[in-house]
Amino acid sequence: MTQTHPFDETVALTAQSDGRWTGDTGTAYGNFVGAFGGAVSAMLLNSVMKDDRTLGSPVSQTVNLCAPLAQGGFTIQTKLQRGGKYTQHWNVELFQNDAIIATASIVMGNRSETFSHQPAQMGDVTPASKIDPLPNTIPLEWTNRYDFRFAEGMPIVSGKPNAELGSPHTKVWISDNPPRPLDYLSLSAIADGFFVRLLQVRGTMEPMGTVSLTTHFLATPEELNTQGTAPLLGVADSNRMHNHFHDQTMQLFGTDGTILATGTQVVWYRQ
Amino acid sequence: MTQTHPFDETVALTAQSDGRWTGDTGTAYGNFVGAFGGAVSAMLLNSVMKDDRTLGSPVSQTVNLCAPLAQGGFTIQTKLQRGGKYTQHWNVELFQNDAIIATASIVMGNRSETFSHQPAQMGDVTPASKIDPLPNTIPLEWTNRYDFRFAEGMPIVSGKPNAELGSPHTKVWISDNPPRPLDYLSLSAIADGFFVRLLQVRGTMEPMGTVSLTTHFLATPEELNTQGTAPLLGVADSNRMHNHFHDQTMQLFGTDGTILATGTQVVWYRQ
Repeated sequence: MTQTHPFDETVALTAQSDGRWTGDTGTAYGNFVGAFGGAVSAMLLNSVMKDDRTLGSPVSQTVNLCAPLAQGGFTIQTKLQRGGKYTQHWNVELFQNDAIIATASIVMGNRSETFSHQPAQMGDVTPASKIDPLPNTIPLEWTNRYDFRFAEGMPIVSGKPNAELGSPHTKVWISDNPPRPLDYLSLSAIADGFFVRLLQVRGTMEPMGTVSLTTHFLATPEELNTQGTAPLLGVADSNRMHNHFHDQTMQLFGTDGTILATGTQVVWYRQ
Repeated sequence: MTQTHPFDETVALTAQSDGRWTGDTGTAYGNFVGAFGGAVSAMLLNSVMKDDRTLGSPVSQTVNLCAPLAQGGFTIQTKLQRGGKYTQHWNVELFQNDAIIATASIVMGNRSETFSHQPAQMGDVTPASKIDPLPNTIPLEWTNRYDFRFAEGMPIVSGKPNAELGSPHTKVWISDNPPRPLDYLSLSAIADGFFVRLLQVRGTMEPMGTVSLTTHFLATPEELNTQGTAPLLGVADSNRMHNHFHDQTMQLFGTDGTILATGTQVVWYRQ
């Protein structure tokens, strides 16, 4: 008997009617309050990918996290805003008890061979196999669902402010735990799998959370198949932290150096 | 008699009812087909900023450009999805003849003094005053509305493919033409004021266009006032171009080196 991977259980949706879907968060991807934003992102993407009208594969997703997604049932409503030969635009809303928890805009696109070029390079990095996984002492359930191996910029939260501010730059190998072959849903979740940059800059845990998360999917379905269960290299950074908000950029490379996704998010922090 | 700046004319909206607004594109920001995406972005943001219910100042905006905005009248419908003490989430739709042209999600936020840190630096760059403005031979009306001074990576479109692929990296001073004091609306537009990276990599003009544009506003209103009409330094780059889609990242610095906005867009190209 094959056991369903906790990620697939978490993002599973049941069709109701007219682009309406229901699901249940479960507990496997729990965060401080509510579910991990990456899991919410994958649920939203799943509602579009499961639709009979969907075109090609995901190109872009912006998720706005309006309130924590509490453990339990939720409803998703999709709206196909406009479709064409090359791209398709969707808006998606996620509710709990009739209150909006998250919204998303999703672009699907038809891919075929064109000019291809990758200016960004992975650079020198220690292979995942030569780095110990992060010993998981973090009391957040979702962090147990990933294997993190920090090549550069492991966040060290000492509980007291850093004497000297840390760098927001991180290079980290990330894979699902237990292993699961990569697809657009897990890529959408891993795009939010970087710890908040403020943590490693200051060295202290503060009330903070992602407000809006944008991911551009640059990989073809074939490239995701090739990647399989091997670890992705994630590179994260921040440009500026000011007056409650900071940005956080990211790149996700396949093991062979192919860029699979890039993106940015804006984080709110209290003080 | 003071003349209204063409930007203000272009993004002007007339209140109808229930978050419904109307406007007219005019001709000052015309692009290949329809209006410049940056102008569309500013129209959408204006519909939220003009609303009596709006909170604080803009934090994040994602604009999905579904179809060209033809010259003439248009309608905008806003929806306040969720509001809190710190942030407010909006969805916005722009129509022409009942067809969706663009959608946006916009996050507004209350700003006040907190921990502040800017890891990203402007680096060495020739001042705008020492660079000649781009001689405008581009047959796109919107490009006449900006003063572009390229410090690095001026796109050269020769009409034949580059013998060696160009770098997608650009540093360019950008300001409104004629000058106009910076505000969030013009910042939203300038965020889309970078030429498509594919152009300078290949050296040829191809059918291409922005599909989704995300901007994170990191500046306070006071910082925008300080900037006034001085040129912004824009830095743009791309990570990967593959199978019809490429990403395009950007940073916008004030003249004094303060990061005012960062963002990313995904571009569709035909071949």
